[in-house]
Amino acid sequence: MKRVLVTGGSGFIGRHSLAPLVRAGYEVFAVLPEWETAPELGATVKWRSADLLDKTRTERLLEEIRPSHLLHFAWNVEPGKYVSSPGNLLWTSCSLALLHCFAGCGGRRVVMAGTCAEYDWRRGFLSEHVTPCKPATLYGACKHALRVAGEAFAKEVGVSWAWGRIFFLYGPYEDPGRFVASVARSLLRGEPAWCTHGGQVRDFLHVQDVATAFVALLDGDVQGAVNIASGQGVTLKEIALTIARRLRKERLLEFGALDPPANDPPRLVGDASRLRNEVRWSPAFSLDRGIAHAITWWESQDLSA
Amino acid sequence: MKRVLVTGGSGFIGRHSLAPLVRAGYEVFAVLPEWETAPELGATVKWRSADLLDKTRTERLLEEIRPSHLLHFAWNVEPGKYVSSPGNLLWTSCSLALLHCFAGCGGRRVVMAGTCAEYDWRRGFLSEHVTPCKPATLYGACKHALRVAGEAFAKEVGVSWAWGRIFFLYGPYEDPGRFVASVARSLLRGEPAWCTHGGQVRDFLHVQDVATAFVALLDGDVQGAVNIASGQGVTLKEIALTIARRLRKERLLEFGALDPPANDPPRLVGDASRLRNEVRWSPAFSLDRGIAHAITWWESQDLSA
Repeated sequence: MKRVLVTGGSGFIGRHSLAPLVRAGYEVFAVLPEWETAPELGATVKWRSADLLDKTRTERLLEEIRPSHLLHFAWNVEPGKYVSSPGNLLWTSCSLALLHCFAGCGGRRVVMAGTCAEYDWRRGFLSEHVTPCKPATLYGACKHALRVAGEAFAKEVGVSWAWGRIFFLYGPYEDPGRFVASVARSLLRGEPAWCTHGGQVRDFLHVQDVATAFVALLDGDVQGAVNIASGQGVTLKEIALTIARRLRKERLLEFGALDPPANDPPRLVGDASRLRNEVRWSPAFSLDRGIAHAITWWESQDLSA
Repeated sequence: MKRVLVTGGSGFIGRHSLAPLVRAGYEVFAVLPEWETAPELGATVKWRSADLLDKTRTERLLEEIRPSHLLHFAWNVEPGKYVSSPGNLLWTSCSLALLHCFAGCGGRRVVMAGTCAEYDWRRGFLSEHVTPCKPATLYGACKHALRVAGEAFAKEVGVSWAWGRIFFLYGPYEDPGRFVASVARSLLRGEPAWCTHGGQVRDFLHVQDVATAFVALLDGDVQGAVNIASGQGVTLKEIALTIARRLRKERLLEFGALDPPANDPPRLVGDASRLRNEVRWSPAFSLDRGIAHAITWWESQDLSA
């Protein structure tokens, strides 16, 4: 029997992974923070409240569930703050303890969420076996550290291990402070959407695609780091225009109104060949269809919040 | 006032660091495991028993002491086992939590013990700014991970940070299972000392030199990784012969009696220029004097244990 524990089960990616896990035949246990209530997802999921920063609590949880599989999304990801938050260190620490405990409870296969921010961002095209890891942020450094220690540990104790490096994403439940959500919400309210120059090339996937890619990765036996990426570059300007065209509000886009962040890299595109050829996964959404889907979801939401 | 917390204070290097810290003007608090009793060292040291793997206990300790400086030696280092022990993951985890707590309690300067095993050992000459880190063991990977996350964290929160990479060492209180101690003990008992071919070139320091180098590193403001190395290569054969000549027992050395470990690197020598030119430290012991000093200490010990 395949029994998976999903951490960050109520988070942006985690919540989209639950139904695909059920469809793939997993008995699904999902962890959410103690201050949240479990979302209604229409899938058979057993929810557990836990503070994963509390090692003793984590140990009790693992001993209760004894999962064969672990899908670890939970992290501090507060928009605008998480990149340099001191809490990154505690999430690294507790993720290592979680892995140790998972192995000790008989766990067999683990997939953890990594990030394209582990790579040297001066490279532009980011490939698992070629591009050096040289994170420029605390967030990237902590994820990189977790990968290095976790992978060596898993190899030593015989736990099957993969590490999905997340690139850029959008879709239902995206935090309003993030790029696609903020543009869509502004336009839906009839307000101007302030953007930078928009020439930055990025690699975007719809969040449901990111989630099914993680499920495919978990359900196979590919080892090591795998980019969760489309392999296609698209400018932020093109993303914003795709949203605006669908809403017929191109005139509300204000390119150049914001300064880009310091050291904003011109191009970040992931090599998706491992994901396509080894994990044998490909995205269900084109950019057009994905944006349309996300807009439909935003239209159903209260935009005043 | 300078108040230092030394973890692993009763360990091989830690215990030799305490008197130099007192001489350098520190108020010294030293942590030892709960199952040990504090060694008599003739130095004014305040001992604290604590299990550093217990985060709550660590937090209480840091809040009590509120050290300005942290010298972190504690780790799982059981000879023959620590290189691949799953416990490495927990030491990484608790070291990150320790650093987070130290910063939160107002700590200003931290030095942690790293290892030459972080480097790509195929390189032979290991230099902080040049040689890539590509650890081949779980121990090396975990230390490397701690360095990556710890350094990024320290930079972000404004804590002064250095990382001393330990090479090879010997001297009083060395575990009998390690190379110099086992050769010295065998010869002192009049028994043959079984060795490998002995052609491996290594970088050795006397443990008291390693300890004073760490104290010099802590007491300055050099940032980042610094090799705690002599910069000089010496063969294991030459080390064994230095011991045997002093004891007039060359005939008891059996080179070639043991197989070297798999992937035993032919040469591991550290670039000591940062330590000499930036930390402005140099060793007090030559190899001859250091070995003589260690033998005198072994002669004072019960060799039957």
